[in-house]
Amino acid sequence: MSSWKDNLRTIEPYVPGEQPDLPDMIKLNTNENPYPPSPKVQEVLDQYDINALRLYPDPNSQHLVDAIAEYNGLNSDQVFVGVGSDDVLAIAFMTFFNSKKPILFPDITYSFYDVWAELFQIPYVQKPLDDHFEFVRSDYYGENGGIVIANPNAPTGVVQELDALRDIIDHNRDVVVIIDEAYVDFSDHSALELIKEYDNVLIVQTYSKSRSLAGMRIGHAMGSAELIAAMNDVRFSYNSYPMTRLSVEIGAAAIRDKAYFEEMRKRVVDTREWTKKELTRLGFTFGDSKTNFIFAKHKTIPGEVFFDELRKKHIFVRRFGNNPRIKDYLRISIGTQKEMEILVQELEKIEKMH
Amino acid sequence: MSSWKDNLRTIEPYVPGEQPDLPDMIKLNTNENPYPPSPKVQEVLDQYDINALRLYPDPNSQHLVDAIAEYNGLNSDQVFVGVGSDDVLAIAFMTFFNSKKPILFPDITYSFYDVWAELFQIPYVQKPLDDHFEFVRSDYYGENGGIVIANPNAPTGVVQELDALRDIIDHNRDVVVIIDEAYVDFSDHSALELIKEYDNVLIVQTYSKSRSLAGMRIGHAMGSAELIAAMNDVRFSYNSYPMTRLSVEIGAAAIRDKAYFEEMRKRVVDTREWTKKELTRLGFTFGDSKTNFIFAKHKTIPGEVFFDELRKKHIFVRRFGNNPRIKDYLRISIGTQKEMEILVQELEKIEKMH
Repeated sequence: MSSWKDNLRTIEPYVPGEQPDLPDMIKLNTNENPYPPSPKVQEVLDQYDINALRLYPDPNSQHLVDAIAEYNGLNSDQVFVGVGSDDVLAIAFMTFFNSKKPILFPDITYSFYDVWAELFQIPYVQKPLDDHFEFVRSDYYGENGGIVIANPNAPTGVVQELDALRDIIDHNRDVVVIIDEAYVDFSDHSALELIKEYDNVLIVQTYSKSRSLAGMRIGHAMGSAELIAAMNDVRFSYNSYPMTRLSVEIGAAAIRDKAYFEEMRKRVVDTREWTKKELTRLGFTFGDSKTNFIFAKHKTIPGEVFFDELRKKHIFVRRFGNNPRIKDYLRISIGTQKEMEILVQELEKIEKMH
Repeated sequence: MSSWKDNLRTIEPYVPGEQPDLPDMIKLNTNENPYPPSPKVQEVLDQYDINALRLYPDPNSQHLVDAIAEYNGLNSDQVFVGVGSDDVLAIAFMTFFNSKKPILFPDITYSFYDVWAELFQIPYVQKPLDDHFEFVRSDYYGENGGIVIANPNAPTGVVQELDALRDIIDHNRDVVVIIDEAYVDFSDHSALELIKEYDNVLIVQTYSKSRSLAGMRIGHAMGSAELIAAMNDVRFSYNSYPMTRLSVEIGAAAIRDKAYFEEMRKRVVDTREWTKKELTRLGFTFGDSKTNFIFAKHKTIPGEVFFDELRKKHIFVRRFGNNPRIKDYLRISIGTQKEMEILVQELEKIEKMH
């Protein structure tokens, strides 16, 4: 007998990092910022007239789009906003990846890419990173339906230089190349300038890490006006009003507060560099992270041991146990300096016990 | 030469009602509530610690899901939440409509259904409503890939009784039947009780109309735990954290304030009934609306005339000029009593001029 269950889209969903909520926890598992968002966000809430919430938001989220465009020196028609960069990336996949040829991305990268490909029935091939977690450029020279590069890459933290990206793009002018810059604010450079040269390059960024607003779900894409218009057509075919009124106003206020942003970013980067030295001292190895996390492996002790022992102390880090290439790595988000000092103490204890 | 443009998903997007923002306007074009949301929403904002916004939301939106379940006497595993009912419906289409057979819905109904079908490449057939905008039940007896019924229907405002829905569902136990109850709080009854009898019925509702929270983008679906689990798998394959932290807390607080909700709902319904009498007096005809809008046609004067003249006075209503069956109808949202009195005065002036 036929059943409604025959017509289900069955899919193995992405599993996000857990969201424990313990008063004494040190949460270093989902790459959130340890510092609060800009005080300008508080001002938005303090002054907000809730009567406005009875109305639909502006479908174009114009206040937010304009603020992001201004910050980045772009026209507003070069900016697309969504409900976190996951929403932005999902729409980009749906909009641009409708070829029969496979899209390409690395074997070790953001683990949502293959989930979206499955969801939207996009063929894909994962190209292995080399043993230093670097891209093999020539893997991306052949025919394909599009390319996705996280830069800096996650969970490795490793960054590709602009000339490597440019080389890959030069070999792929007939497909869309997405550069996912979720962590770019903790690195030295963005590939944003490439959108002036290439009409097929889309840069995706997020408010969730460097702007301390993971809870407000704001992400954005930047590219040629043609790319952005195509994404908006798909967006408006899915949901006319994706962003809450509060997200739009909070996002616009936050991006205008450059001084606060620079200060908080510097704090995270300084703590990251301190943590790298300590991890080296304790016998960990890792790529040169340009993000707000470090992806590290101990020379002798398995990742699972650290993961479980830290958890007992309510210190949460992330592990990707299902992937044999990286099962011994811990992805450790950068917390406050104080939190990282406690982490290092605990790692040292675990190391001495084993 | 091949181009990235060859792989675009090209689609005619849904066009939402315009969002004018004039200080003196009377906005009756997008079925928003004229009254502010519950004062409990203000309390949430007043007490909110913005430091929490640095963290991702709970992927399950549990506070909100639990509050909706409690309000409706359901288990939490029977409730799904999304970014407005548009997001909820889009995910339901993606999850449940993967048959080669066409899904069915009326020719005059919420104009997003065919847009989602196009977006997700779902075959569909639109069944004409009869001349009183009523469903022809037998149109839904044949083989199909699923059914979508807006009840009360939009933009007609007409409601189907439960026995009609039950009849359609009894003929369609092997597909999912979605009942879109965006306007149900302004009618006498919901089909919610049917989810206890039928594991293939999904009820979709929204906070955007009766709860005065269009600006916060909150919608929900209710159905068997199996239906909800399937939607969650698709949801988590698209975006792990769809709802902002503020949406979750505001939504939970709003639905718990039943007294305020009942009072505002009664005000809208009372004004609707007053407006019906006045429209009849002015020579309009309309179905018996059980929503927060009236879909009305004048016996002699074309809809376009009223639409344009009202617009000059900054009174915005909605018209569906592209559809010949309904091009002379105006969809007039119910505003405050005072706003509707002004509307009636202006309609009367226009009538006398023509």
